[in-house]
Amino acid sequence: MARYIMKFGGSSVATVEHVRAAASVVARKHRDGHEVVVVLSAMGDTTDELLARALAVSARPPARELDMLLSSGEQVSVSLMAMALRELGLSARSWLGHQVRILTDNVHAKARIAEVETGRLEADLSAGVIPVVAGFQGIDDAGEVTTLGRGGSDTTGVALAAALGAEECLILTDVDGVYTTDPRMVPQAQRLSRVTFEEMLELASLGSRVLQIRAVQFAGKYNVPVRVLHNSGEGEGTLISYEEPDVEAPVVSGIAFSRDEAQVTITGVPDRPGNGYAILNRVSEAHIVVDMIVMNAPRSGIVDFSFSVPRDEYEQAMELTRAAAAEIDAGEVLGSPNVAKISVVGVGMRSHAGVATTMFEVLAREGINVRMVSTSEIKISVLIEEKYLELGVRSLHEAFGLEQAREAT
Amino acid sequence: MARYIMKFGGSSVATVEHVRAAASVVARKHRDGHEVVVVLSAMGDTTDELLARALAVSARPPARELDMLLSSGEQVSVSLMAMALRELGLSARSWLGHQVRILTDNVHAKARIAEVETGRLEADLSAGVIPVVAGFQGIDDAGEVTTLGRGGSDTTGVALAAALGAEECLILTDVDGVYTTDPRMVPQAQRLSRVTFEEMLELASLGSRVLQIRAVQFAGKYNVPVRVLHNSGEGEGTLISYEEPDVEAPVVSGIAFSRDEAQVTITGVPDRPGNGYAILNRVSEAHIVVDMIVMNAPRSGIVDFSFSVPRDEYEQAMELTRAAAAEIDAGEVLGSPNVAKISVVGVGMRSHAGVATTMFEVLAREGINVRMVSTSEIKISVLIEEKYLELGVRSLHEAFGLEQAREAT
Repeated sequence: MARYIMKFGGSSVATVEHVRAAASVVARKHRDGHEVVVVLSAMGDTTDELLARALAVSARPPARELDMLLSSGEQVSVSLMAMALRELGLSARSWLGHQVRILTDNVHAKARIAEVETGRLEADLSAGVIPVVAGFQGIDDAGEVTTLGRGGSDTTGVALAAALGAEECLILTDVDGVYTTDPRMVPQAQRLSRVTFEEMLELASLGSRVLQIRAVQFAGKYNVPVRVLHNSGEGEGTLISYEEPDVEAPVVSGIAFSRDEAQVTITGVPDRPGNGYAILNRVSEAHIVVDMIVMNAPRSGIVDFSFSVPRDEYEQAMELTRAAAAEIDAGEVLGSPNVAKISVVGVGMRSHAGVATTMFEVLAREGINVRMVSTSEIKISVLIEEKYLELGVRSLHEAFGLEQAREAT
Repeated sequence: MARYIMKFGGSSVATVEHVRAAASVVARKHRDGHEVVVVLSAMGDTTDELLARALAVSARPPARELDMLLSSGEQVSVSLMAMALRELGLSARSWLGHQVRILTDNVHAKARIAEVETGRLEADLSAGVIPVVAGFQGIDDAGEVTTLGRGGSDTTGVALAAALGAEECLILTDVDGVYTTDPRMVPQAQRLSRVTFEEMLELASLGSRVLQIRAVQFAGKYNVPVRVLHNSGEGEGTLISYEEPDVEAPVVSGIAFSRDEAQVTITGVPDRPGNGYAILNRVSEAHIVVDMIVMNAPRSGIVDFSFSVPRDEYEQAMELTRAAAAEIDAGEVLGSPNVAKISVVGVGMRSHAGVATTMFEVLAREGINVRMVSTSEIKISVLIEEKYLELGVRSLHEAFGLEQAREAT
């Protein structure tokens, strides 16, 4: 007997028929003798529909009220799931964030989990009851409802797995695992049977389709094995853990990419300490996530400073950057909302030179201009014009030999 | 400056456009210098839609999970309303039952309010913030989400009015007041400018279209004036209060009716103490509301015992009554799900004889058979075949002279 968290995403509980199907998958796990805690997202497009209603009422809905609104979605899915499980003859009970007491900080719309109380869930498990917990939501010190941001239910799942000492956190979704790249773009893409937390983090843009990045960080921090699995419960999926790579591990395990990027460049920044901070601080105070940051070497006492942000926050980032530019006597602020990012990822990269060389060679051969580069120990990312994205990903996937059936790491 | 509770029903917040219109009505009241607390039902048919989903998952969804599910509806309306009010430049904040702390007993689906904590709402009002409170929902001692039953938001409104010492609880709805009878059935029906709590209770079936009966009881108990008003905020509506009737008050102030009735008759009940209890106890333990109860005088040591129940609980009531009949050695259990109730109501009835006489005379003239009768100080109710309902109501409305424009009580 082991203990599992089973987290179903929105597409896996999109209709009452989906809810019933998911309940059967849970029931099978439970009847195999395991303890199961279910975590759910809102049904299908509920969150988007609620958001559309909010925007019909207010162009800039207050974050507190938006959290109140959006968190209603999971309340629907968990109660229906509890009913469906009971219909299958199992004991089950739904729980909201404030009932479990999933405590978060008070940053509405992007709250972070501070603590999970386990008393009620342990009591349920001891009594043979399957707790069905609303993902995505928590409560702050003041009793205010908070939400964890897009895909936050993954984080809820991992946090519960950590708090309850679960064997694995199963992420049940509409794909059967993590692939070397998006199979919709590269049909030769292969399922990875294992990846490390580090690789998964760097494969963010691939993984974001199946798993929220913060959930992976959380899982790594608390060493919670996470398995991405098809929502039928069939197959092995992809296990994400701290497993050491084989000696024979391939250099590159996957090609990640992201379309929804925008680039902001502030020119003629006086090369003084604190100017970088002055720019980024405004942007990050608005809770805009800055991804790549590049600054060239100073020339005549001034530098150009570039960074990338999610595309839907481009306008706001430009506005804030213009204000910062005025404050620090910098020059013009330039931007492009039509860029995309490609990342080549692999733990094997640490001990192998030449990955960057191959990458630039392939892109140059295809006539793709690189606008920005950033590197980490196990990843090289480039920002390119969006229209070249497919060409770039396919060329790199082939160049790094990812088309053969294989086991990663 | 006075303090008002403004409760909007589901049809008054059915779409985001309705929410914005309702917000304007609230804003006008607030700008007139009043303190306002808003209470909302779920948007339009949300509750029915959620219920349909529950029934698609489970034929008999557990009450606890149903409460969890249904209470999500008000969470949506209150957050959207808070956004809409802020969009109009007002301070506003949405509150759920567990946040206000609207404490109830633990009878899921039909919970009763035990206590309302006012700290957070008073703090909002002091700070010029308009609290927007989710109706229909509360929380029990164990932190479980409870709901107050159909139309429970009215009760929430009245309970808040009582706890906060509001001037009036305004019930904003899609009709402009309480009428002498349903204007859809009798076009000559007149709006009552005032009625007493007692009359309103007895006009339940009329009033239930605009106001939950339990809310009226609650309002009478705590002497909270309730005003039924059109959701445009225009007009005077109908004030429900303890106002003493004028000496010249009409004998009858309204004709109420209800289609959704069913009759259960248990024949050959041995005339022994406790048998009535044995029957009704089973039915009321299932939380089925028994309305009219009639027992004839004993004949040869046995009696027939009849009562009426809401039609949607007819099958269950028949089942329970058959079990009771077996237990107490009674005879056959008969029933009819196709009956309706007509009630003639008026505080003036107390001092006027002859209302019953007129009532039976009118019904007999129209050839309408009376199946059951029950009387109270200010009401006479009859159960008749449903097909005669319209005929009966129109005839009585005319016979009691309710077609002239008038002020009631």
